[in-house]
Amino acid sequence: MAKRYPDVLRVEFDGKKRKFGSRHNSCPNSPTYQKYSVRLAEELAKRYGKRDSIVAWHVSNEYGGACYCENCEKAFRVWLKKKYGTIEEVNRAWDTAFWGHTFYDWDEIVAPDLRSEHFAETRTNFQGISLDYSRFNSDSMLACYEAEAAAIRAYVPDAKITTNLMGTYKPLDYQKWAKSMDFVSWDNYPENGAPYARTAMSHDLMRGLKGGMPFALMEQTPSVSNWLSYCALKRPGVMRLWSYQAVAHGADTVMFFQMRRSIGACEKYHGAVIDHVGSENTRVFREIAALGEELKKLGAHTLGGRSCAKAAIVFDWDNWWALEYSAGPNTDLHYLDEVFLWYRALAEQNYAVDLISEEETLSRYEVVIAPVLYMTKTGYDEKIRGFVRDGGTFITTFFSGIVDEHDLVITGGYPGRLRDVLGIWVEEIDALPPDASNQITYEDVCYPARLLCDILHTEGAETLSAYEKDFYAGFPALTVNSYGEGKAYYVATRLSDDFYRAFLRERMEEKEVRPVLEAEAVSWVTEKNYDQEAISGQETVAWKAGIEATERFANGKSILYVLNHTDETAEITLPSERTELLSGRILKTGDKISIAPKDVLLLERNL
Amino acid sequence: MAKRYPDVLRVEFDGKKRKFGSRHNSCPNSPTYQKYSVRLAEELAKRYGKRDSIVAWHVSNEYGGACYCENCEKAFRVWLKKKYGTIEEVNRAWDTAFWGHTFYDWDEIVAPDLRSEHFAETRTNFQGISLDYSRFNSDSMLACYEAEAAAIRAYVPDAKITTNLMGTYKPLDYQKWAKSMDFVSWDNYPENGAPYARTAMSHDLMRGLKGGMPFALMEQTPSVSNWLSYCALKRPGVMRLWSYQAVAHGADTVMFFQMRRSIGACEKYHGAVIDHVGSENTRVFREIAALGEELKKLGAHTLGGRSCAKAAIVFDWDNWWALEYSAGPNTDLHYLDEVFLWYRALAEQNYAVDLISEEETLSRYEVVIAPVLYMTKTGYDEKIRGFVRDGGTFITTFFSGIVDEHDLVITGGYPGRLRDVLGIWVEEIDALPPDASNQITYEDVCYPARLLCDILHTEGAETLSAYEKDFYAGFPALTVNSYGEGKAYYVATRLSDDFYRAFLRERMEEKEVRPVLEAEAVSWVTEKNYDQEAISGQETVAWKAGIEATERFANGKSILYVLNHTDETAEITLPSERTELLSGRILKTGDKISIAPKDVLLLERNL
Amino acid sequence: MAKRYPDVLRVEFDGKKRKFGSRHNSCPNSPTYQKYSVRLAEELAKRYGKRDSIVAWHVSNEYGGACYCENCEKAFRVWLKKKYGTIEEVNRAWDTAFWGHTFYDWDEIVAPDLRSEHFAETRTNFQGISLDYSRFNSDSMLACYEAEAAAIRAYVPDAKITTNLMGTYKPLDYQKWAKSMDFVSWDNYPENGAPYARTAMSHDLMRGLKGGMPFALMEQTPSVSNWLSYCALKRPGVMRLWSYQAVAHGADTVMFFQMRRSIGACEKYHGAVIDHVGSENTRVFREIAALGEELKKLGAHTLGGRSCAKAAIVFDWDNWWALEYSAGPNTDLHYLDEVFLWYRALAEQNYAVDLISEEETLSRYEVVIAPVLYMTKTGYDEKIRGFVRDGGTFITTFFSGIVDEHDLVITGGYPGRLRDVLGIWVEEIDALPPDASNQITYEDVCYPARLLCDILHTEGAETLSAYEKDFYAGFPALTVNSYGEGKAYYVATRLSDDFYRAFLRERMEEKEVRPVLEAEAVSWVTEKNYDQEAISGQETVAWKAGIEATERFANGKSILYVLNHTDETAEITLPSERTELLSGRILKTGDKISIAPKDVLLLERNL
Repeated sequence: MAKRYPDVLRVEFDGKKRKFGSRHNSCPNSPTYQKYSVRLAEELAKRYGKRDSIVAWHVSNEYGGACYCENCEKAFRVWLKKKYGTIEEVNRAWDTAFWGHTFYDWDEIVAPDLRSEHFAETRTNFQGISLDYSRFNSDSMLACYEAEAAAIRAYVPDAKITTNLMGTYKPLDYQKWAKSMDFVSWDNYPENGAPYARTAMSHDLMRGLKGGMPFALMEQTPSVSNWLSYCALKRPGVMRLWSYQAVAHGADTVMFFQMRRSIGACEKYHGAVIDHVGSENTRVFREIAALGEELKKLGAHTLGGRSCAKAAIVFDWDNWWALEYSAGPNTDLHYLDEVFLWYRALAEQNYAVDLISEEETLSRYEVVIAPVLYMTKTGYDEKIRGFVRDGGTFITTFFSGIVDEHDLVITGGYPGRLRDVLGIWVEEIDALPPDASNQITYEDVCYPARLLCDILHTEGAETLSAYEKDFYAGFPALTVNSYGEGKAYYVATRLSDDFYRAFLRERMEEKEVRPVLEAEAVSWVTEKNYDQEAISGQETVAWKAGIEATERFANGKSILYVLNHTDETAEITLPSERTELLSGRILKTGDKISIAPKDVLLLERNL
Repeated sequence: MAKRYPDVLRVEFDGKKRKFGSRHNSCPNSPTYQKYSVRLAEELAKRYGKRDSIVAWHVSNEYGGACYCENCEKAFRVWLKKKYGTIEEVNRAWDTAFWGHTFYDWDEIVAPDLRSEHFAETRTNFQGISLDYSRFNSDSMLACYEAEAAAIRAYVPDAKITTNLMGTYKPLDYQKWAKSMDFVSWDNYPENGAPYARTAMSHDLMRGLKGGMPFALMEQTPSVSNWLSYCALKRPGVMRLWSYQAVAHGADTVMFFQMRRSIGACEKYHGAVIDHVGSENTRVFREIAALGEELKKLGAHTLGGRSCAKAAIVFDWDNWWALEYSAGPNTDLHYLDEVFLWYRALAEQNYAVDLISEEETLSRYEVVIAPVLYMTKTGYDEKIRGFVRDGGTFITTFFSGIVDEHDLVITGGYPGRLRDVLGIWVEEIDALPPDASNQITYEDVCYPARLLCDILHTEGAETLSAYEKDFYAGFPALTVNSYGEGKAYYVATRLSDDFYRAFLRERMEEKEVRPVLEAEAVSWVTEKNYDQEAISGQETVAWKAGIEATERFANGKSILYVLNHTDETAEITLPSERTELLSGRILKTGDKISIAPKDVLLLERNL
Repeated sequence: MAKRYPDVLRVEFDGKKRKFGSRHNSCPNSPTYQKYSVRLAEELAKRYGKRDSIVAWHVSNEYGGACYCENCEKAFRVWLKKKYGTIEEVNRAWDTAFWGHTFYDWDEIVAPDLRSEHFAETRTNFQGISLDYSRFNSDSMLACYEAEAAAIRAYVPDAKITTNLMGTYKPLDYQKWAKSMDFVSWDNYPENGAPYARTAMSHDLMRGLKGGMPFALMEQTPSVSNWLSYCALKRPGVMRLWSYQAVAHGADTVMFFQMRRSIGACEKYHGAVIDHVGSENTRVFREIAALGEELKKLGAHTLGGRSCAKAAIVFDWDNWWALEYSAGPNTDLHYLDEVFLWYRALAEQNYAVDLISEEETLSRYEVVIAPVLYMTKTGYDEKIRGFVRDGGTFITTFFSGIVDEHDLVITGGYPGRLRDVLGIWVEEIDALPPDASNQITYEDVCYPARLLCDILHTEGAETLSAYEKDFYAGFPALTVNSYGEGKAYYVATRLSDDFYRAFLRERMEEKEVRPVLEAEAVSWVTEKNYDQEAISGQETVAWKAGIEATERFANGKSILYVLNHTDETAEITLPSERTELLSGRILKTGDKISIAPKDVLLLERNL
């Protein structure tokens, strides 16, 4: 096909026309690709559609990347015409009057790449066109998925169709994609040394794509990921632990890539259930077989479980794209980093948390955090206002409320449409290089302030902490505004892990939200090889991360998942009478149960 | 235009043809660009040329970059034909016999880029062609400027025309450009943490472009530069301080980019007089308004001021290009670094200094420094000889006198045509990696020797210091040659800041040149947050940088500018009776006047 | 030619079509290049072929790089057809079923570059095609060489023809090239600070290309290499020392690039016999002239000398390419690094060692080391088996025996075909990042284990050391298997220099192989500026590297070369009665002779 119809091949960001080879090499706007990918799906549906053994359909594999060919360029113009109607509206949305880039005709618009507006992957001279191209590229690939799904459904009307997502993958707006998927599935390949909360965040983001509906873990490696620089083995017990972590966060199935190691090409050293040796006599095979036995024993107990979080973190792909296209104020500002700081502080204290799109209702939550809500889309401010008015606790940070959905600045003073609910006006933003910091004191603890320091004036808000250095010493760095029945917090600078932990625990306690597992319920039996990270001096409970707990609800029952990510043995004091599903042991409230390194407990109770 | 006439778009260094977008995207040798840019200038001149409110014309904006398209390639051949006459002469000038690159026809010559002679931006296989292409590219853009200027002048014969330069900007030979400009203007965007002397050097270079004639500061940011990695705010007082620094170095006007922050595109977070908030109620607006008031009060006092330096540093674009195209001896050798070492040593001691082109007369100076005068153009050696013969002090360094204007080595022993006036022969050049050093002792102080160490033999010169390590221990590292009435110094290795300070003070004192403000006239009242950098033990006067002083002369008056770049308060002892212009206070010789952190004094006296 | 026939110009790895300029810019599969390069060789042979003064012919210069143009692509298909016969066999060899890359027609195959299978120089999605392209590219250039050589030989039937190789140069399989060369010649440009053993390894590799036949040192610099970042001078005596090092390792001639420094272009600052000064009065000229005098005095004594090594290291270009194309297990694994660890351990203890291709007979050696023998070509396992069966000591390491000649994994358990002779089964491979290590203890010394840790089971082998940390603590890390009359060692992890030294000395002593110069025969007279590196505490002989010794045999005589690479004076105790050729001094067994820093001794004796 590449030979006969070169239009199926992509053009890269630097203008390089691809030849046959690699993968993700098909242009989503290639007429040829569109025609034959759908025909292929049709043929598969015709041939296999009636088989009983098929429970679901998986379209394509890890959609991703982007194309900058002429067909994409033309399709982009059509997409823009549909979105904006007139070229004048495009000019307004992109502010093309700047630098005299005004377009007079649709075909003057070219794809934004290294040949036109970009000088690096995320460095562009026109944020508006780049942002829309990100949306367009995501939509283009989604249309390919939808066309194949439709072809299948034509033959298999009740087909359950999915495609494997990749967690926090920037190029595709999965929140939009999920609407066209019958269920979410994703591939979990953590980097070496990633904290367990980072994987948990991806699980929770994936779960949130369809409002908490259970998802499938489509791929994980049984042992190594071959594309890492250092292909470290999953230590004994880790594959099982991470499999249960998926279930604990909402997976109803856990699968592997791959069954058998291929003998050639680039993934021949990727982990597999069956290694090149070809026998069952390997540690990896034994661990997977044992897990299979265990799951068989568990039966349907875990299926359909739902979380019941009272805290949510707002996550938005448009915001991600726009924030990281921004020229200024600090190139070290990355959306995922900021989201993770907040997520981790909740997750490591075992507070249940949802990652939600901007379309989700806020009223079911007590605490909503929107880290770096740079883009405030029309109407979202009102949603926040309503939430706070009705008693909610809303938290946002520096560089929020700055632009609208077109990346056009909302004039009249930062944080724009959020100024009233937060009760502040941000006059200036100071950026700090990595080796510099200011500082604040919050409840007698001193925390370093980094990255960005907003210089703000309260307009009704109360100052909780102020900067202590530089010419803006004394200016507020942390504020709270009472608004209706609720409170709106503004964190004007990047603080440290221990701040986020202490600050969020207070917010949760104010709203009487309890963790799934209290810190007091965990005690350590052995301590070895563990890099203790204790909360600062003020803490009365000696706390450290490593015992993860989530709770899922289904069929009138709750399962409390307790996972020991450490290399130490811990002891859990039962918060309620529960049955440990794997051992069958019945435990009363207050009983102590030991949990070995890398081990898991599934503690069920009737509601 | 990009759609209809693609020839207006550039081809990049890697051969990539650009599409519409970004800026600096027009090819200077595009017939279409040449035609319409001139027509546009014509139309503007026709329409606005007679208005009284126009005091000057600013053509284009920050010319820069380079193009490697076929039109440029063809124009390059024409340029070469005009310069060299015959292809044989091109072959001689570029030494194409090397590697058998002899050209037999003009159209065999291609643009030197990553497709031909280059393997990196400044790494070329043929220095000759790359050097000429640098000259050609600068000339091509200059021709565009000149064509627009001519079109304006056709309608506005007495138009004052300029374009905004960018200080030490390598691609354009501003010394050549300035001849076509009625006055010099430039944009000053220092990097975070740049020493104040670095900005001063750019001012002095810009002032020198037209022989000391006052220039315009066309652009500076009121607060942040949005394209920096870390957009640090200008601290309170700094915008005012740096504005006066421009005036102190020869600016007759100080302007800003930008008046109002745009709401979209890449510069929306660049500083502005009027912020997105849209009100006058910001620190930045207040500081600018206050400065405006102050300037109103100052009136014409500062206009037309000229410096009267007795020291000059030779600065040459051809030398810059050739030096940094050189394959060997040390990739860490950068022209600006070396020039700045010498400039800083003078500037921080408040000696007035000019940066001059090779066309300037030397006779008005007592001390002339030519750092790394790698290229000795035909005749310039004789200019130096004349200067020294007549009593001048000439100083040059390692890797000087090596090549002629074609980057062809002057055989017969380094430093070529300067061998006689310096009285030395350099036999070998040793290059040191960054972590290695030799050492010398000069007037009982030991200094590290880095980067390059010439191994030389005196031929009449006197050895002032010698290397103390390695196999060339004992060989001269610092020499002086008496020649006619003057002296010629050779600094054979890269030394340290304190060496350059001590060495140059001696040279200045020998020639009875005094600083604008003596070190003894400065005392420190408070000392805080300041990283003291004292001259080594031999100093009797405790000296540190931070109080900058320049003197400008006009209309029978002198203004002494004193600028406090530190965070401490200092006290200045008046060197002569003067009026402090901003306060109106009259001070007698010996009076003490305090200067607060970031503050300035303008001390006027009649001559 | 570039103008008239653009096909002579290469296409780069990123698809960029080159223009005239640089060097190595000719496509080896250009019909134009093939035609005219041969005609040129013909004309030269016709004109100069009969001259007595010509002793050898040097074709082209430093062949290298690669081309990815359409002519190469077509030639690649022809090459593949010749190698594989059918497209089905290509699919099998490359395992194209993976990712559905099956080819149905020859012209579907495209060159593997950044437009197709590659995402970086050594990162490919299909190892098979990339490996074959490396072979094809090497063969294509070799064909160019052969065609020119044939053209010369047509006129000069007894011509001695060579081309200058570049030591450990990856793109060209010199072992294959050498078959078409009458003698080997190469260019020696060590990097600043390279250990002397690294240069020695290149010499030994070059010598091994034609089974130990003396070679020519075609190029070395008299003083500096201008393309280095820091062009450090060769210190006094170093040029002479390194010239003798070439002879000591098998060179029959030592030449220089270049005679005279050019005045222009990129190599004008490369060292030369005659510098830009143009006189004989330079250190460099004097040193070369003195060396010439010395060589004249030596006469033919050194010519034709052969080594007699009892240890060999297997070196294979196919293995090099395949290993470094591998996706996993550790991107820090580089073939040359691993080979050098083993080479250095022998060389610094002055054991004679050969670097041999896989075609060489093993029976003449006592100890054969095959570091990271990742690729085990069909039949080579049997060669190893035979060698061990007959009493040889064979040593190999982690990540060996994995794939066949097509980079297809040999299934059934690592190390594949070597499993029986090594008596082990490697179940898993753990990769360590640079800052991590495991450890082993061998003969009471503890060594860090890095890079890769095989987790293996013995199947007849004896465990000499085991891991001491992590979950595979206790698993074997060093094993030996008795097989027939010999022993096969497996080193399952990367250890440290002192391990390799101690381990190899033991292996050599077991086989009664003695060093050319015993450690006891060296004592140090002065100790200065020397970073002593002693073997760990267990050593009874205080040993340090720096005195290199080799022995060459010819015409019934042996010459022992002793080279002092240190800055100290040493004393050598004569191992046998010998004549020092440079001084003429006759020395008896047990006599002591002093050797100054950078000096050499040539000690001859009759056999």
